Amino acid sequence: MPKIGIGVVGLGRIGRLHAEIIKYKIENAELVAVSDVVEELAKSVGEKLKVKWYTNYDKMLQDEKVDAVVISVPTFLHKDMIIKAVEQGKHVFVEKPMTVTVDEAKEVVKAVRKHNVKLQVGFNRRFDYAYRNAKKYIEEGKLGKPIAYIAVARDPGAPPSWAADPRKSGGIFLDMLSHDFDMARYLLNAEIVEVYVVGGNYIYDELKVKGDLDAVSIAFKFSNGAQGLIHGTRKFPYGYELRTEIYGSEGVVYIGSNIDNMLALGTKQGLTYFGAPWFEKRFYDAYIEELKAFVNSIIEDKEPPVTVIDGLRTVQIAEACWESYKKGKSVKVKLD
Amino acid sequence: MPKIGIGVVGLGRIGRLHAEIIKYKIENAELVAVSDVVEELAKSVGEKLKVKWYTNYDKMLQDEKVDAVVISVPTFLHKDMIIKAVEQGKHVFVEKPMTVTVDEAKEVVKAVRKHNVKLQVGFNRRFDYAYRNAKKYIEEGKLGKPIAYIAVARDPGAPPSWAADPRKSGGIFLDMLSHDFDMARYLLNAEIVEVYVVGGNYIYDELKVKGDLDAVSIAFKFSNGAQGLIHGTRKFPYGYELRTEIYGSEGVVYIGSNIDNMLALGTKQGLTYFGAPWFEKRFYDAYIEELKAFVNSIIEDKEPPVTVIDGLRTVQIAEACWESYKKGKSVKVKLD
Amino acid sequence: MPKIGIGVVGLGRIGRLHAEIIKYKIENAELVAVSDVVEELAKSVGEKLKVKWYTNYDKMLQDEKVDAVVISVPTFLHKDMIIKAVEQGKHVFVEKPMTVTVDEAKEVVKAVRKHNVKLQVGFNRRFDYAYRNAKKYIEEGKLGKPIAYIAVARDPGAPPSWAADPRKSGGIFLDMLSHDFDMARYLLNAEIVEVYVVGGNYIYDELKVKGDLDAVSIAFKFSNGAQGLIHGTRKFPYGYELRTEIYGSEGVVYIGSNIDNMLALGTKQGLTYFGAPWFEKRFYDAYIEELKAFVNSIIEDKEPPVTVIDGLRTVQIAEACWESYKKGKSVKVKLD
Amino acid sequence: MPKIGIGVVGLGRIGRLHAEIIKYKIENAELVAVSDVVEELAKSVGEKLKVKWYTNYDKMLQDEKVDAVVISVPTFLHKDMIIKAVEQGKHVFVEKPMTVTVDEAKEVVKAVRKHNVKLQVGFNRRFDYAYRNAKKYIEEGKLGKPIAYIAVARDPGAPPSWAADPRKSGGIFLDMLSHDFDMARYLLNAEIVEVYVVGGNYIYDELKVKGDLDAVSIAFKFSNGAQGLIHGTRKFPYGYELRTEIYGSEGVVYIGSNIDNMLALGTKQGLTYFGAPWFEKRFYDAYIEELKAFVNSIIEDKEPPVTVIDGLRTVQIAEACWESYKKGKSVKVKLD
Repeated sequence: MPKIGIGVVGLGRIGRLHAEIIKYKIENAELVAVSDVVEELAKSVGEKLKVKWYTNYDKMLQDEKVDAVVISVPTFLHKDMIIKAVEQGKHVFVEKPMTVTVDEAKEVVKAVRKHNVKLQVGFNRRFDYAYRNAKKYIEEGKLGKPIAYIAVARDPGAPPSWAADPRKSGGIFLDMLSHDFDMARYLLNAEIVEVYVVGGNYIYDELKVKGDLDAVSIAFKFSNGAQGLIHGTRKFPYGYELRTEIYGSEGVVYIGSNIDNMLALGTKQGLTYFGAPWFEKRFYDAYIEELKAFVNSIIEDKEPPVTVIDGLRTVQIAEACWESYKKGKSVKVKLD
Repeated sequence: MPKIGIGVVGLGRIGRLHAEIIKYKIENAELVAVSDVVEELAKSVGEKLKVKWYTNYDKMLQDEKVDAVVISVPTFLHKDMIIKAVEQGKHVFVEKPMTVTVDEAKEVVKAVRKHNVKLQVGFNRRFDYAYRNAKKYIEEGKLGKPIAYIAVARDPGAPPSWAADPRKSGGIFLDMLSHDFDMARYLLNAEIVEVYVVGGNYIYDELKVKGDLDAVSIAFKFSNGAQGLIHGTRKFPYGYELRTEIYGSEGVVYIGSNIDNMLALGTKQGLTYFGAPWFEKRFYDAYIEELKAFVNSIIEDKEPPVTVIDGLRTVQIAEACWESYKKGKSVKVKLD
Repeated sequence: MPKIGIGVVGLGRIGRLHAEIIKYKIENAELVAVSDVVEELAKSVGEKLKVKWYTNYDKMLQDEKVDAVVISVPTFLHKDMIIKAVEQGKHVFVEKPMTVTVDEAKEVVKAVRKHNVKLQVGFNRRFDYAYRNAKKYIEEGKLGKPIAYIAVARDPGAPPSWAADPRKSGGIFLDMLSHDFDMARYLLNAEIVEVYVVGGNYIYDELKVKGDLDAVSIAFKFSNGAQGLIHGTRKFPYGYELRTEIYGSEGVVYIGSNIDNMLALGTKQGLTYFGAPWFEKRFYDAYIEELKAFVNSIIEDKEPPVTVIDGLRTVQIAEACWESYKKGKSVKVKLD
Repeated sequence: MPKIGIGVVGLGRIGRLHAEIIKYKIENAELVAVSDVVEELAKSVGEKLKVKWYTNYDKMLQDEKVDAVVISVPTFLHKDMIIKAVEQGKHVFVEKPMTVTVDEAKEVVKAVRKHNVKLQVGFNRRFDYAYRNAKKYIEEGKLGKPIAYIAVARDPGAPPSWAADPRKSGGIFLDMLSHDFDMARYLLNAEIVEVYVVGGNYIYDELKVKGDLDAVSIAFKFSNGAQGLIHGTRKFPYGYELRTEIYGSEGVVYIGSNIDNMLALGTKQGLTYFGAPWFEKRFYDAYIEELKAFVNSIIEDKEPPVTVIDGLRTVQIAEACWESYKKGKSVKVKLD
């Protein structure tokens, strides 16, 4: 079977991770090119992985061996790069979130449909064993009727400079919490229809200056009557906290932890645990699985497991969150 | 030193617990009477504890040895019984919540002020070592600036029949979650000024019929700009879940657990933990401490640690929650 | 039904606990007297609990209302006080360990049999819900065939002065670890037949001076072919550690924890838990249950749940441990 | 810098893991060949990794590009294959344990010294972050004086067929618990000088038939007076249990866990956790680190971090364990 040729554009931490995974871990794919506007980066990755390297994305798109692209550049660049790719008939795997604005997201939806290519958004948690098992428990009825999605997401520190600007990243609701909105929709199999946000700037001046928030609390309603709460912040004193629970009429499933339980030190001060492994390690297998699924959706010509509509929805929810925060009241999510 | 004579009215589970604690555990108090409209109950408790017993509360109030009363009857009876007591110059310890409605609460505030007696509300968690240490950490600055109060409260099952009627109990927001509202105010040292509720009936038909809810998610704002989330439900599959966390700019404190960590069984199915101890056991020492504090406030003629205003506030917050639920939007708490 | 009259001798921390439990918590018993050679102590406890107090144990034994005694004096005084009591036809509840030496233990066995009274040894863990559930799981076959008993016992600090002298307390094997030997025999329903000890003085000079050890590791064989490991030390940096696990061919049960899971503080240093509750709190209910069981064995004229032979066995095992330690090799337990 | 050329012999699960790690993860090494007596396996791995493949180990040794070999064949084949390699001047990384018998181990020591090559034994736990941090805590004095090494090791099931035969694998003490003996020596920086074993056949008939044991409890003494306990079994009902603790006069460090704390399911039955990740995943980074260290020891011409003497010691300890088990008494380890 011929392999799907893939080019990766954007060779930051996540881009390099995707490139290595495609190179070494995806049976039916072949890494054929990498691209980054920083020549040194493009060259070093290209040489290390023994593939062509570009500094010009457009040229990479003209490469005939490139059947599909993995886009892992800053969010505000997503829309144009997606559209260029699909116009060339290339399939697209785009890091989350899909776009910064709803308008951009709708352009993407339209383009993907018109050119009839596959687009998958990088909501990697859908491919993590823990979230997957949670989904399975729900589908098997182990939780009875799902009633509430509750999540705490605490990053270890402020985002990289560009992502601190909500006009470029969508801000905390999109850049960080789109994972949780996607998981909420996925696990409860329902849309988020109304949100209410309490948020503020408590920690990082640079976020305040650029218009982003550093801690938010969100309550929301699902289309099926279920409830949700998300607490997200940009700072956690040690490690990284990512916990999700689904409460149902007959059971509860808890995902994630605030500690690494493999080491603890007991002294006069008590017993101390340390941080859970950061996402690249925590979700390493999920990063493999999502790319496998993307490649399979191309090979088998079927809908990818995270669709362009999933991408659109999280942008719509994030926009509603911003509106709620600014108006100081609850807001309906526009799901058109 | 003469001891404070106390009469306990309402001899359900909590009333009996209070009576026994006063009898055996409070140095400066003396249990002098118990009262319940159920004669058999009044008699058996009175005989067991070797104190006078009444079926008529008014008569107990005329007992000269009664300096103070502990009221642990259904909430809708609180207001009248408090007022009768304070009009006789008796000090009052009343189980939470103080009253069903804000109007009742304001009557109580007025009466207590007029008659210049002590009134303490039974928010026992304020006296629990874990919540107290959390408060201490916050005051010591270990958490930096407090940013969010997040709580999950899951009772093991539907409340007793009278409490399922929100006209008698105040419903889930007051009967159950007033503990959390009080803790939020206490730990963050700020008022709750706006609430937004998502809630519903998912589990118990009897609650729906009577107009109460069985699961709610609440987001709220504090007067100092901090944030809050509470998830409360009337059912938990095993045991009892009560977890609270305070997130600050420099640290987090976690209180409570969903398990008893003293026993676990590992089989082919995995490693299973069982329920955390139910509140009478979990908070046993706190029940002692709150009564000691009440007695001391009488002896030393000082403000009790949980005041009539604390009682009023939780009723105001609960009313705002009901309004938010009914209107489907966020609501300001009327703090007048 | 007439209540069993009980006198408590030895009013240290545990003696007072027993006295209060008998006074307030045991339906079928009546606390009729307390005794301690320290007059002030005897008097204050007697007055607080409103019972007769003695400084002379012999006189208390002559008290007709005393049907049974609870002996909670230093171990080296047990044998004589037990024998005096049983010669007066009094039933005896004696704190663990039963005696210091095997010879003493055998005298006690003989005396108890001759005078046909009940004697129960204070192995309170047998009455703790967690150990009881472990026993139940074993009996139900949930663990398959029990293969190993493994325990870690770490006290918070050196024992009281008299107990630091192994001639008075039996030393670490008896004073501290007899609980574990008893639990091992109880849970695996088999005798310990051979022991091997590695031990030493690493921490407390006062223990070394008096001939006791402060940390020991023990491997042992059961009569049914099962295995055991116990690690015991006199010091734990925070709190108190008491963990036991039973490994079987189909399952494992874990009892106890090194932390209190009700509170944790997360800072830059990590997430810190604090000590598990100390034994009086951890085993409070067990202290009640063991005395209930003792009283019932008198009332129903049946064997107490922890017998004089159980008392003897733990002394025999501890003696074998001392011998193993001194000889530097494994030693058979003399079970005659 | 020229890379160290490595050939991997034995392409079972661990061999393939080593080969992939060398191929993709070790900067200064190059995978130049793989070898396995099963032609199909050798071929498929060779083709997948794009390197030469052999079915004849001797031929691979003659390959000039092979500077070093990684030996991951059954233990009873180690000695001859090590000696062939070192006689060709090849450096050797050999999976644990180094050999089956002490005599073999001594032959290896002699040959390695004579031919002046590097030999490292695959005690991967030395390279795991948790054990490394434990070592660091000890060296920093956080535990005070180290007093005891305590470990529980429970594999998920019986070993592969050849390893069930102690003449081929060294049995449970060597095949499985050599990891713990090595960790004990490493963490406490002392030799194990005396052992006492209680063991038996409780679970797997095939182990009994071949002369191996399926559950053992070991107490041991260190040369510096410290103590040790190890409990090892070949079966664990769910997952895999690997816990180690070092107890010192001022602190305790706990390594490992019996659960994966990333997922838990709460139902009427309680809260259930599932198995910790199996060793390939748990120790994946350690497998990389140990090979990096091996390659560096060649490049920098220095002693590998796990030496041929470390390899010898664990074989000596395991032999002493067998002797103790067979004689039913404690045995000194012959450390000559």
